[in-house]
Amino acid sequence: MSQPTTFEQAVADLVLANRILAQEGVLDGFGHVSVRDPRDRHCYLMSRSIAPALVTADDIIPHDLENNPVEAKDREQKLYYERWIHGEVYKARPGVNAVVHSHSPTVVPFASTKAPLRPLLHNAAFLGFGAPVFEIRDHMRNSDLMISTAELGKAMADTMGEKADVVLLRGHGNVVVGPSLQVAVFRAYYTEINARQQLQAMTIGHGDVIYMDAGECETTDKIMQSVAGRPWDLWKSKVGGS
Amino acid sequence: MSQPTTFEQAVADLVLANRILAQEGVLDGFGHVSVRDPRDRHCYLMSRSIAPALVTADDIIPHDLENNPVEAKDREQKLYYERWIHGEVYKARPGVNAVVHSHSPTVVPFASTKAPLRPLLHNAAFLGFGAPVFEIRDHMRNSDLMISTAELGKAMADTMGEKADVVLLRGHGNVVVGPSLQVAVFRAYYTEINARQQLQAMTIGHGDVIYMDAGECETTDKIMQSVAGRPWDLWKSKVGGS
Amino acid sequence: MSQPTTFEQAVADLVLANRILAQEGVLDGFGHVSVRDPRDRHCYLMSRSIAPALVTADDIIPHDLENNPVEAKDREQKLYYERWIHGEVYKARPGVNAVVHSHSPTVVPFASTKAPLRPLLHNAAFLGFGAPVFEIRDHMRNSDLMISTAELGKAMADTMGEKADVVLLRGHGNVVVGPSLQVAVFRAYYTEINARQQLQAMTIGHGDVIYMDAGECETTDKIMQSVAGRPWDLWKSKVGGS
Amino acid sequence: MSQPTTFEQAVADLVLANRILAQEGVLDGFGHVSVRDPRDRHCYLMSRSIAPALVTADDIIPHDLENNPVEAKDREQKLYYERWIHGEVYKARPGVNAVVHSHSPTVVPFASTKAPLRPLLHNAAFLGFGAPVFEIRDHMRNSDLMISTAELGKAMADTMGEKADVVLLRGHGNVVVGPSLQVAVFRAYYTEINARQQLQAMTIGHGDVIYMDAGECETTDKIMQSVAGRPWDLWKSKVGGS
Repeated sequence: MSQPTTFEQAVADLVLANRILAQEGVLDGFGHVSVRDPRDRHCYLMSRSIAPALVTADDIIPHDLENNPVEAKDREQKLYYERWIHGEVYKARPGVNAVVHSHSPTVVPFASTKAPLRPLLHNAAFLGFGAPVFEIRDHMRNSDLMISTAELGKAMADTMGEKADVVLLRGHGNVVVGPSLQVAVFRAYYTEINARQQLQAMTIGHGDVIYMDAGECETTDKIMQSVAGRPWDLWKSKVGGS
Repeated sequence: MSQPTTFEQAVADLVLANRILAQEGVLDGFGHVSVRDPRDRHCYLMSRSIAPALVTADDIIPHDLENNPVEAKDREQKLYYERWIHGEVYKARPGVNAVVHSHSPTVVPFASTKAPLRPLLHNAAFLGFGAPVFEIRDHMRNSDLMISTAELGKAMADTMGEKADVVLLRGHGNVVVGPSLQVAVFRAYYTEINARQQLQAMTIGHGDVIYMDAGECETTDKIMQSVAGRPWDLWKSKVGGS
Repeated sequence: MSQPTTFEQAVADLVLANRILAQEGVLDGFGHVSVRDPRDRHCYLMSRSIAPALVTADDIIPHDLENNPVEAKDREQKLYYERWIHGEVYKARPGVNAVVHSHSPTVVPFASTKAPLRPLLHNAAFLGFGAPVFEIRDHMRNSDLMISTAELGKAMADTMGEKADVVLLRGHGNVVVGPSLQVAVFRAYYTEINARQQLQAMTIGHGDVIYMDAGECETTDKIMQSVAGRPWDLWKSKVGGS
Repeated sequence: MSQPTTFEQAVADLVLANRILAQEGVLDGFGHVSVRDPRDRHCYLMSRSIAPALVTADDIIPHDLENNPVEAKDREQKLYYERWIHGEVYKARPGVNAVVHSHSPTVVPFASTKAPLRPLLHNAAFLGFGAPVFEIRDHMRNSDLMISTAELGKAMADTMGEKADVVLLRGHGNVVVGPSLQVAVFRAYYTEINARQQLQAMTIGHGDVIYMDAGECETTDKIMQSVAGRPWDLWKSKVGGS
C-alpha cells in the first residue's frame, strides 16, 4: 500500500476517503481526513470546512504544519476548526502520512468510560499498540471539548505518544493515523467495528473477554497493512469511484 | 444560524426538516415539526396531519398559539392531534422559534426508566441544561399518553421549565426546541445519538460514565448552535434538496 | 380503519402488507400475512408459499378455515407449511380479521426467556392485553418448532386466549392479530419496536422500567387503531404503492 | 436443494452466494465462499482474492484439495490467503459440498468469550450439532490469527470434528459448511441472526435462556435444509439475480 505519488492522485484518494468513511458510518456531518502532500511532506492536504460526504477535489486545500493554507487563494476559505489535530500529529510522528478525525459512533462510549478499547478482531490489531484517552479537562476547564488550538493539538499528540495509532477524545470522538491514506481509512473503519464487537463481547462474557496478545498484534498489523487495498476497492465501488 | 426571514423560505425549510428527520430515523410515521411564522411570531407553521416523510409545501398550515388554523381555507384540514405541544411551548418560551416532537427510538427507553439522559457527546451539550421526564400519569389517569389538550400542553411546558431544551414524555417520545429550525433539528438528531451512546457507555462502564460538566455544556452549546448548518447541508443533499 | 370491502381491494392490500412488513424488517424470507375474505368470512386470503417480499396479486389464494385452497385451480400450489396458524385463530377469534406470522427479530429473544414482553411505547398499547409465550415443547417433543398441524394451531390459539393480540412462539417468532389488516400490520411493526425499546430500557434501568398500566392500554389502543392508516400511507409510498 | 449439476450453474450460484452474503452483512471486504466442482469432487471452485461483493464469473478459479489452481492459466492469479480452510474441510468432511468463511460481525464476540453460541432460533437448528471455538494460540504463538497453512487448516478441521457445521475462530470469524451451497449460505446467514438474538436473550434473561434441545435440532435442521431455497430466491432478487 504505497502512498500516492502525485498531487492529483492524492487529491482523488482524499476525496474517496472522505466519501468512504461517510458511507460506512464512521464520519457523520463532522470530522475530517488529511494526507501529507506528496510534493512536500511538511504540508498536508485536507478539505475546507464542509461535511465529509460532500467533499470534492475543488475543496481540497494544502495546509502547512502550522495549519495555515499554503496558497494565497485559499486564505478566504473557512477551514476546519480542529485542523490543529493534523499539524501536531504530523510534526510529532514522522511515520504518519494520513490522519482521520471522526465521531465514530461506538468509539465515543469507550472514550467516556474507564473501559479501554482493546484489540479483539484481527483487523484491528493496531489497537494493541495502545488506544489512550485524551481528557481535555486535564488541560482546559469549561472547554468545548474540541482541539481548537495548537496547545491542545500538542497535548493530544503527547497523549497519543510514539506508538499508538489511535487516541480517543473524551466526549467527542477519536483520531486514527497510518503510514498511508488507505491504512488510516482501514484503521478508522475497524476501530468502529472492534468497538462494537468489544461492547458485545463484554456484554455476553461479563468482562471475561479474550483479546489479542502483543505478539499477535505485532504480526497481524503487518498483514493488515498489506491488505488494506482490498476493502478500499470495495468501498470505492460503493461510493461510485471507478 | 438565523431564522428564515420570509414565509416561503420558512415553508421550504420546514418541509426539509420533516424529511430530514424522517430520513435520519428520528421521526417515523408520527411526530411533527413546527417553526414560528416569520410574518407573525404569535403564529407557527406546521403540516396538516400526515406522516412527516410525506410533507410538501402545500401541507403547511399557519396555526395561532391556541393551535387553530389562521386561515379559513385550512379549517377543513385534519390537524395533528398533539398540536398543543407547540402552542404551549411557544407561549412559555419566547426564545424558542422551532419545536420538534418525535418518538426518537432510543430516547423512549430513557423516558421509561429512572436513568436520566445526560450529555455525553459534545454535539448534545444542550442536554446539560436539563432533560426532565414528563409523567402524564401525574396529571391524568388512564390517558392515551398523548398531549391532546391545552392543559396537558401547559403541564408539559411547565416540566420543561425555562432552561431545558428537551423534555422526555414517558412511554411516548420527546420534544426538542431551539432558537432556529436548524438548531432544533440538530438537537433532535443528536438527542437520539447521545441516547444510543449513553446506553452503550452505561453497558460497558457499569454506570461509571464521564459526562460533560456544566461549564463544558455552556461553552459547547454555543459552538454547536453556530455549526448546525453543516449537517443540515449534508442532510438536505440526502433528501434531494438542492 | 375499515376492512376492504371488495376482493380486489383485499388482495391489493394484502400484497402491500407483505411488502411493507418485509421492507420494515418484520418479515424476512419467511412468515406470512392473511386477511379474511371479504366475500366470505369463513375463508381467508393468503399467498402461496413464497418469500413475503416477492408476493404479487397472482400469488394470493383463498383458503378455507381448514386451511385448504377453496378453488380447484389452487390445489397444485405449494401452501405455507404453517397455514394452520391462520385457520385456528380465525375460528377461535371472531373479531380478528387479519393475522401476521413473523420471525420479528427482537421478539424472538423475548420468546426464549422468562422476561415478558410488556407495553412500554404507546403505539404498542395492545401488548397490555397480554403477550403469552407458546412453548411447543409442552405439546410435542422433538418438534421442528413450527405450527404444522391443526392440533398445534389450536393449542397456540388456546395460549393466545380471548384477549391477547399477540402470542410469542418460543425459539421461533410470533403471531399478531387485528380487527383489520392495517391494524394487524401496525401491531406487528410496533411489537418489534416495543421489544427493542424494552430491551434497551431493561439494560439502562436494571429492571426498573415504567410500563403502561391497564387503563392507559385500554384508552390508547383505541386511538392507535384509529390512526393505523397514517404509517400505512408512509410505508405504502416506500414500497412503491401509489 | 440439490447441488448444481453443471460447472456453469455452479459458477453462477457461487457468484450469487458471494454477493448475497455481502448484501446481507455476513461478509465485508474479506471472507470467501467455495463449492465443490460438479465435474470433480476432489476440486472446489472459489474466487481469486478480491472482495466478495465484487466477484464475477470470470474470477472463479478451480482449486484442487491442496488449494492450488487446477488450470495453468490461473497460476498467476492472487489466491485467497486462507484458502487452506476449504481444502482441509473438504478432505475431512465428505458430506460437505460448500464452505463459507466470514467475519460475520456478531459471531466474532462469541468467538472471543467463553459463552458458547447455541441454537435459539429454529432457522439455526444446526448449531445444536456443535459450534466449537478454534483457539489458534494453542497451535501457534504470535500468529496473525489466520488459517494460512495446511497445518492450521487441518487443526481447524479437527476442532470442527465430524458433526459440527460451524467452527468459530477466536478473534477472527467463523467457518460454516453445508451439503449444498444454498444450505451453507442459509446457515451462514442464520448463524449471524442467532448470535444477535442470543446476545439479546442473554441481556434480558440474565443467562436464563431457553435453547433448542437436541431432538428439536435434529428434526428442525432437516426441514430447514429443505426450505433453504426460499430465502435464496429473495436474496437473489435483492442482488439483481433474475
